[in-house]
Amino acid sequence: METKKVQLGVDLGGTDIKFGIVSGGEIVYKGKCPTPQDSAETIMDTIAEECLRLKKEYPFQSVGIGVPGWYIGEELYTDNLPFNGTLFVREMEKRLGMPVFSDNDANCAALGEILVGNGKDYQDMVLLTLGTGIGSGIIVDGKIVRGKGAAGELGHLIIDAVNGEACTCGQSGCWERYASASALVRQAEKAAKEHPESLLAKTYCEQGKMNGKLFFGALSSGCPVVETVFDAYLDKLVVGIQSIRKALDPEIFLLAGGTTAVGDVLLKPLQAKLGDEFNIKISVLQDDAGIFGAAGLSCN
Amino acid sequence: METKKVQLGVDLGGTDIKFGIVSGGEIVYKGKCPTPQDSAETIMDTIAEECLRLKKEYPFQSVGIGVPGWYIGEELYTDNLPFNGTLFVREMEKRLGMPVFSDNDANCAALGEILVGNGKDYQDMVLLTLGTGIGSGIIVDGKIVRGKGAAGELGHLIIDAVNGEACTCGQSGCWERYASASALVRQAEKAAKEHPESLLAKTYCEQGKMNGKLFFGALSSGCPVVETVFDAYLDKLVVGIQSIRKALDPEIFLLAGGTTAVGDVLLKPLQAKLGDEFNIKISVLQDDAGIFGAAGLSCN
Repeated sequence: METKKVQLGVDLGGTDIKFGIVSGGEIVYKGKCPTPQDSAETIMDTIAEECLRLKKEYPFQSVGIGVPGWYIGEELYTDNLPFNGTLFVREMEKRLGMPVFSDNDANCAALGEILVGNGKDYQDMVLLTLGTGIGSGIIVDGKIVRGKGAAGELGHLIIDAVNGEACTCGQSGCWERYASASALVRQAEKAAKEHPESLLAKTYCEQGKMNGKLFFGALSSGCPVVETVFDAYLDKLVVGIQSIRKALDPEIFLLAGGTTAVGDVLLKPLQAKLGDEFNIKISVLQDDAGIFGAAGLSCN
Repeated sequence: METKKVQLGVDLGGTDIKFGIVSGGEIVYKGKCPTPQDSAETIMDTIAEECLRLKKEYPFQSVGIGVPGWYIGEELYTDNLPFNGTLFVREMEKRLGMPVFSDNDANCAALGEILVGNGKDYQDMVLLTLGTGIGSGIIVDGKIVRGKGAAGELGHLIIDAVNGEACTCGQSGCWERYASASALVRQAEKAAKEHPESLLAKTYCEQGKMNGKLFFGALSSGCPVVETVFDAYLDKLVVGIQSIRKALDPEIFLLAGGTTAVGDVLLKPLQAKLGDEFNIKISVLQDDAGIFGAAGLSCN
């Protein structure tokens, strides 16, 4: 009898730490706990404690951890958590007494997609997660493209070199300033202010806060202001996707994140702009991709 | 006694076909002939004839051919030569009776750089050739990134999505419209017309034709109009390089092509804009990179 391999994937986020036991291409156990906010030590202790608890139940031989940051050599840096040059993998191995593998969360998500998600029939894939920014992971020949360590930051392709908006990364005109979920919300807010007579503006005024639900609600009610905003947003999304296609010509593009919850409302007009033969899909794994990818890091 | 491997690399260009015998990391024989312009058949016959002649002198076991076009599956397409869906590799193998390997010429040049050029100490590299457009090849983990077949077209990253110039590829705002050697010449012509009192305009008027030599001559004479044009050109070059860094974070960037003939005049101010730690160099192989890469295709 063949025993299925059992792997543990951890997805460290700014709010929660998710734990998933992966076996036979499925998540057989899933749990989470809040991310401690006080120190890197506490976060590492918390992850270790849960891993060691799970180890009593599941026979995993190593731990894979996706992190919301980037590595320079062995040092982990994060924007929204207290890691600043932490020797994360070494520290975790000390606590766990087994091999630890770690990578950026967007890279883990991309790996998860190629291992068990919509990407599993392909070797070359790009995953774009439309959220606060545009997270991304590049897979070439079945492997994560890491370069010197910081590859896959496609949200920071410069698409407006002339009059570009300032980006948090220090550049101007980055793609994610125009095509992330947050960018769509900003564009909708601006349009609502410019068109106070619109359905969009009225609902915005009633609810006091712009979000995707309000936006796509007004879209399905046929608000022409929303239609214009959405069409312009899609054009900006296309610009980056076309650039990536010219650079990497992947077999498939996958989209994930907040904006993709509307499914075909996003995908159909996007596909129309890109052409029928363009292979682009919405991720079915979504948030779980990070767990699958982290679990699979030991083999990538 | 160890026998050095002998390989034949062919670089098919719009004007010339170059042949190089590579052994021990050096080109031990180099020859060329004009590219026939009448038909794909004649071009293939001409290449085959020279390969078979060389085969009598050198013990190569296969032939590698760089082509100025792209493959869709096995079909070769070119813009400036009469290939339009030709089963090029199969046709060449029929003529030569040995294995034939072929790839886009920019990919071959990148492979040549990683095998024997400035890239040889690295696994992840991007080569940018500043010419009529921006040719490019991407190496990840020591291998050419091909995607579905058309990857590595970095000259077509869209850097001005708002008011971009139309590009021959059908997109608007492509990087090569602003940062190729031809773009620099166009920018210089425009500046000369706008500043008829400048040294640039005077020399341009005398010689009747703008080119790199005239431009860099005026730069070394301290013409302030040229300085402004060159600085703006470098900024556009930087925009694309920064985008590529965010996407691929390669260990080294290499520059080749016409504009790089001025060496440090280009490299020093570019390095200053990118930062000291940025690893960017001018190719020492230049045109020979394509021969080395074609010769090395059988192993990549």
